[in-house]
Amino acid sequence: MDAAIGFEHLEAEDERARGRFPVTDKVRQPYGIVHGGAYAAAAESLASAATFAHVSAEGMLAMGQSNHTSFLRPVSEGTIHAEATARHRGRTSWVWEVEFTDDEGRLCALSRVTMAVRSGSAPK
Amino acid sequence: MDAAIGFEHLEAEDERARGRFPVTDKVRQPYGIVHGGAYAAAAESLASAATFAHVSAEGMLAMGQSNHTSFLRPVSEGTIHAEATARHRGRTSWVWEVEFTDDEGRLCALSRVTMAVRSGSAPK
Amino acid sequence: MDAAIGFEHLEAEDERARGRFPVTDKVRQPYGIVHGGAYAAAAESLASAATFAHVSAEGMLAMGQSNHTSFLRPVSEGTIHAEATARHRGRTSWVWEVEFTDDEGRLCALSRVTMAVRSGSAPK
Amino acid sequence: MDAAIGFEHLEAEDERARGRFPVTDKVRQPYGIVHGGAYAAAAESLASAATFAHVSAEGMLAMGQSNHTSFLRPVSEGTIHAEATARHRGRTSWVWEVEFTDDEGRLCALSRVTMAVRSGSAPK
Repeated sequence: MDAAIGFEHLEAEDERARGRFPVTDKVRQPYGIVHGGAYAAAAESLASAATFAHVSAEGMLAMGQSNHTSFLRPVSEGTIHAEATARHRGRTSWVWEVEFTDDEGRLCALSRVTMAVRSGSAPK
Repeated sequence: MDAAIGFEHLEAEDERARGRFPVTDKVRQPYGIVHGGAYAAAAESLASAATFAHVSAEGMLAMGQSNHTSFLRPVSEGTIHAEATARHRGRTSWVWEVEFTDDEGRLCALSRVTMAVRSGSAPK
Repeated sequence: MDAAIGFEHLEAEDERARGRFPVTDKVRQPYGIVHGGAYAAAAESLASAATFAHVSAEGMLAMGQSNHTSFLRPVSEGTIHAEATARHRGRTSWVWEVEFTDDEGRLCALSRVTMAVRSGSAPK
Repeated sequence: MDAAIGFEHLEAEDERARGRFPVTDKVRQPYGIVHGGAYAAAAESLASAATFAHVSAEGMLAMGQSNHTSFLRPVSEGTIHAEATARHRGRTSWVWEVEFTDDEGRLCALSRVTMAVRSGSAPK
């Protein structure tokens, strides 16, 4: 999915992760602006990878449970910058907030991603 | 974006729209199941297209405002079927609910998409 | 909380629950219409009670994890009728959708409530 | 509604608002912890009052459109402190994030509230 939208992971720590994607036709909708699904997908990838990196060390799984993205400002070119912050890191769920900004630092979209943390191995 | 995930629009009426996408590597995340962003993107496309088809006839624009997708059941193969129902069609916003099912008809994900309806021409 | 807003539980089955509250000054906001918090509280109560009734028989707890309510139509008098439907009943979470209608059956608000199901005893 | 849950507004500026409510039986659910609806109602009140204070000076109305509250930590006594930050202040909608903390400063709940800004007078 990351390849489908051109999403690049830049950095992932326990409480914070960053990434970005370029505004190309892959992520544009018919009006020429970034498709809402691209923000949602990027938020999901960022939160999943960062949660997984942490909990897998304890033999746990992380799976997306909910993704709520609000679209605040249309963007038609440049790069979308994503920054995720873990707001809650519990035994059974992690909650991330992801901010998306354009090249001028203006807020374009906002996501809240809830990851379920479970024992066991990955579903096949 | 539709091409990026292989999403196909099947039918769009005022109150209802349907589409689907195949489970290929384009939409899988590292565990091999469908990436949450694929559901969110498909819901956004379906709701946007159906709202736009209606409001553009009145010289209005439809833009995604919020997308909240819950992931209920992991799917690793087959086709994801999407069915959108308009729950509210107001002057300034439309609210859609989108259900995603697998090939056996089991509910996999649920989206609520809010579209803002505005006058004026599309942003460039 | 139910007493604070005058919420009455009418019926609770495994997959469905109903309740209502009268539009009094307890639930009005300054414009004279029903406060968004009243819908959210009612949805939370309905989903919690119905989930708890089921999972407590298996020695499990149900706790609210997320509540997303959209406000579709202002109501200033009469009764608000709530009907909850379980859309997902998993081992670790249940997802409910709650529809609110006025006395004429018009949709006023829509909630999605996610309940976490956990083992153990209630927090003190 | 504020009276029903004992919510007190402390401060409201254009981009920020604060309030609090005591943990009494008014806001407890059967397990003895704060009811999810109390957080949702408090977030709604705070965001509504702060948006209204600003837009009413321009002859506009502010109405709640969506409230998404995540419950992160159960609280059974003390005071719940709410702090709201405006993340988007557009012509037709404002988006607020509200953080709830307990007396020790721990994050208990998180809300995103979307207010619709409209011309015209209040609905009756």
